[in-house]
Amino acid sequence: MTTKYGYADNKEQVLKRLSRAEGQVRGVARMVDEDKYCIDVLTQINAVQAALDKVALELLRDHARHCLANDEVHSHNSGDKADELIDAIGRMLSR
Amino acid sequence: MTTKYGYADNKEQVLKRLSRAEGQVRGVARMVDEDKYCIDVLTQINAVQAALDKVALELLRDHARHCLANDEVHSHNSGDKADELIDAIGRMLSR
Amino acid sequence: MTTKYGYADNKEQVLKRLSRAEGQVRGVARMVDEDKYCIDVLTQINAVQAALDKVALELLRDHARHCLANDEVHSHNSGDKADELIDAIGRMLSR
Amino acid sequence: MTTKYGYADNKEQVLKRLSRAEGQVRGVARMVDEDKYCIDVLTQINAVQAALDKVALELLRDHARHCLANDEVHSHNSGDKADELIDAIGRMLSR
Repeated sequence: MTTKYGYADNKEQVLKRLSRAEGQVRGVARMVDEDKYCIDVLTQINAVQAALDKVALELLRDHARHCLANDEVHSHNSGDKADELIDAIGRMLSR
Repeated sequence: MTTKYGYADNKEQVLKRLSRAEGQVRGVARMVDEDKYCIDVLTQINAVQAALDKVALELLRDHARHCLANDEVHSHNSGDKADELIDAIGRMLSR
Repeated sequence: MTTKYGYADNKEQVLKRLSRAEGQVRGVARMVDEDKYCIDVLTQINAVQAALDKVALELLRDHARHCLANDEVHSHNSGDKADELIDAIGRMLSR
Repeated sequence: MTTKYGYADNKEQVLKRLSRAEGQVRGVARMVDEDKYCIDVLTQINAVQAALDKVALELLRDHARHCLANDEVHSHNSGDKADELIDAIGRMLSR
């Protein structure tokens, strides 16, 4: 059996991180609702974004490992795959 | 009556944005759970991050307006307030 | 005599940092010219960017301190000044 | 004859971009020296950083294409190469 996607092995961990990030966003909303100090709210938003950055990098890592280890990618469309990867990174950088 | 916090006027809108961001994070988790293609998941994570950037900037804007318009801030601790603001921005930039 | 700009006091230091950043960019070009390993070149580009981030934050800090301490800004156009500041930050974040 | 580095084909263009970025940094220093308005200086710093981001992405793209197309990378150390690539991207994102 082949794993279809690069992140198959990390799926549980990625889902756990995302569920935590979801809770963090809810926490930010609670802070705003309770009129917490703006700078403290910003610090928490920052924490959510750092958590999402980590998920994104984890997915990218698995994807890159998968592409580099995969014979089919290797022989047939390495240029396309590289472009797709770098374009995704470009979007992350210039968000 | 004074508004205590800079974002008091935008509170409803900020809360709406955050609730949408929370839904987006849940959507990302669903994509991962359904083994969607890595690059598509990244695109969605990026959308959440862009939404959170917008909330953060909105809060910053209200905070800056508030500080600049506020007599007390102005006369007593303008240096501290400026530092606090810029340090928050620095953390956003070097997350 | 009034100092016209927020960064007047830090001018020497800002100029020194910029001159160092210029040298760093030249160093990156040298690495590329000598066919240095891509990942090492990226590390150096990152160092230049971090240096420029620091200059930008320093200028922002002086600007924010200046605006917050300035009577005229305070009374007449605090909203415009806050918007201008936050728009600049928004451009930095979404570069 | 093999090209040793991923960016060999783009070398001229990368060097041209870097030389332009160097000139831009010099331009920023001139603005500071002439006491130009802080927000305008920030806009120019931003332009340099966007230019350097472009160089970095170009190098990354060539590197990824090179790794994906290269038999040796493929068979021997795809995991290491992927990690190295993603770590470099992680440093760019969390600068």
